[in-house]
Amino acid sequence: MKLHVSKVKADNLSRAHNLVTEAAGQGAKIVVLPECFNSPYGTGFFAEYAEKIPGESTLLLSEIAKENKIFLVGGSIPEEDRGKLYNTCSVFGPDGNLLIKHRKIHLFDIDVPGKIRFQESETLSPGSVLSMFDTPFCKVGVGICYDMRFAELAQIYAKKGCQLLVYPGAFNMTTGPAHWELLQRGRAVDNQVYVATASPARDEAASYVAWGHSTVVNPWGEVITKAGAQEEVVYADIDLQYLAAVRQQIPITTQRRNDLYTVSAVMDS
Amino acid sequence: MKLHVSKVKADNLSRAHNLVTEAAGQGAKIVVLPECFNSPYGTGFFAEYAEKIPGESTLLLSEIAKENKIFLVGGSIPEEDRGKLYNTCSVFGPDGNLLIKHRKIHLFDIDVPGKIRFQESETLSPGSVLSMFDTPFCKVGVGICYDMRFAELAQIYAKKGCQLLVYPGAFNMTTGPAHWELLQRGRAVDNQVYVATASPARDEAASYVAWGHSTVVNPWGEVITKAGAQEEVVYADIDLQYLAAVRQQIPITTQRRNDLYTVSAVMDS
Repeated sequence: MKLHVSKVKADNLSRAHNLVTEAAGQGAKIVVLPECFNSPYGTGFFAEYAEKIPGESTLLLSEIAKENKIFLVGGSIPEEDRGKLYNTCSVFGPDGNLLIKHRKIHLFDIDVPGKIRFQESETLSPGSVLSMFDTPFCKVGVGICYDMRFAELAQIYAKKGCQLLVYPGAFNMTTGPAHWELLQRGRAVDNQVYVATASPARDEAASYVAWGHSTVVNPWGEVITKAGAQEEVVYADIDLQYLAAVRQQIPITTQRRNDLYTVSAVMDS
Repeated sequence: MKLHVSKVKADNLSRAHNLVTEAAGQGAKIVVLPECFNSPYGTGFFAEYAEKIPGESTLLLSEIAKENKIFLVGGSIPEEDRGKLYNTCSVFGPDGNLLIKHRKIHLFDIDVPGKIRFQESETLSPGSVLSMFDTPFCKVGVGICYDMRFAELAQIYAKKGCQLLVYPGAFNMTTGPAHWELLQRGRAVDNQVYVATASPARDEAASYVAWGHSTVVNPWGEVITKAGAQEEVVYADIDLQYLAAVRQQIPITTQRRNDLYTVSAVMDS
C-alpha cells in the first residue's frame, strides 16, 4: 500500500492502522507498508523519530497483525539500538509475533548533480543480515528501497526458495521515473518471482519528495497493479501456479550454469 | 546492426559485408552482427549451414574486420567441431585476428504453450567459457541471445571490468515484446554498463520470426538507439565518461556488500 506520511507520528500510525485494516477487510493476507511510514524521510528526522524495537510503532504493528490475522510487513521505521540508528523493517505474523527484523543493508548514498543528493550514511548504520520469512503461501524475501538495486540480494532470496520479494521503498522524483519500475520488473523476470513495492505517497511539500507508485510485478515481468502518486491501497493475487508455469515455459531456474558461475551468500560458504 | 537473413548463405555473407562496410564508413569502431546471420535460425538448419572456424563465413569476417580496421563481433553462426554443433560468435580485431570465440552457454529451450516452442538442445551443444575481449576503448563481454537471461554472466563481465556487453540475439514475437528491451535495460542499470544487441531483421515468412529491434542501452538504463523491425544499421556512442559519472552518482559498484554475498565465476575460485 501507499501511505501519506506526515510529521506527526501518531497520525502516521493511526493512518497505517486504518489502511491495513481496510486491506485485511478486502481479504489481503500479506500487507506491506511503505519505507519510513511513521516518520518523514530525511537524515534530519531519523534520530527524532527513532524507536527501540519493540517500541510504540512496532507494538502497534504487532497488534494490527494479530487483530487482522495477517502477515504484516511493517514498511520501515528509524530504529535505535545501542546508540546506533537503522532503517528497519519488522515483519509480524498473524499471531502478532515478530518474525524478522530487516535492517536496510545498503545505505542510500547518492549524488546526482542538480537533481538529488542524499546520504543515509550520515546518520544511519547498515544491517548485515539477509531476511526471509515463511508463510503458508510461500517464502518471502525482504529488502528496503536501495537494497533493490543490488541484484544479488534478490538472486539469493530466489535461490533459497522465496517466490515473493517485498521492498518497502521511497524512490524520488529523479530515480523514481528512471528506475523504480525497471528494477522491480528486472528482479521479477530475472528470478521469475513476484515483486511488490510499497512507497509513501507523494508529498510535494516534503523535503524529500517520494515518487509513490507502489507496484506488484509478476514473474513474467508484467506490472499487475500499480498505485498512483497519492495515497492508495492496491491489491494483487500472488499466483504460485502461474509462477510455476512461467518457470516451466522459460526454464532459466533449472538451466543456470552452476558449473560456470555462482551467486552465494557469504554466510553459507 | 540488424540484418535480413535468407536461406542463401552467400547472400547473407554479402549483405553482412556491405552493411559492415557501410557502418565502418560512418565511423563505427566496433560493429556487431546479429545472431545466426549467415543461416536461417532453426534446429533444422544448423547442421546444413554449420562450418568449421575458420571457415567460409569467419574467413570473410576476418577480412572485413581487417579491410575496415574495426572490431567485428560476428553475430553468430552454426559451428561444427568434432561432430558437435555450437551457436558461436567469433570476434575479430582490426588486424583481422580472431580474438575470441564465444559458444552460446545457455541453450534456448523454451515452451510457451500456444505461443512458441523451440529447443536448441535438440541439435546444439553448449559452450562452457565466458568470453571477453579488450579494445583500446574498453573491455567488452559477449553473450548470445538466451545468455542475456542469466544475470550472472553480465555481473561477472562487469566485475571483470567490461563496460560494454554485446548480445547478438534473435528473440521472437512472444519473448521479444515481453523481455527483449527489459532484459537489456536491466543488465545495463544493474551493472551500470552499456548493453548492445543485434537481431536479425523480422521475416514473417521464416519458420522462426525474429523480433528485430537491435538496441543500445546506456548505463542509466535508457534506450539510446533502437532499430525498427526491418533491416537497419543503428549507431551509438559508448561514452565512458558518462558511464563513470553514473557510477559516481549512484555508486552501487563500490557499495556492494561483498561481506554478505558474492557472484563469481567458478573458474576463478
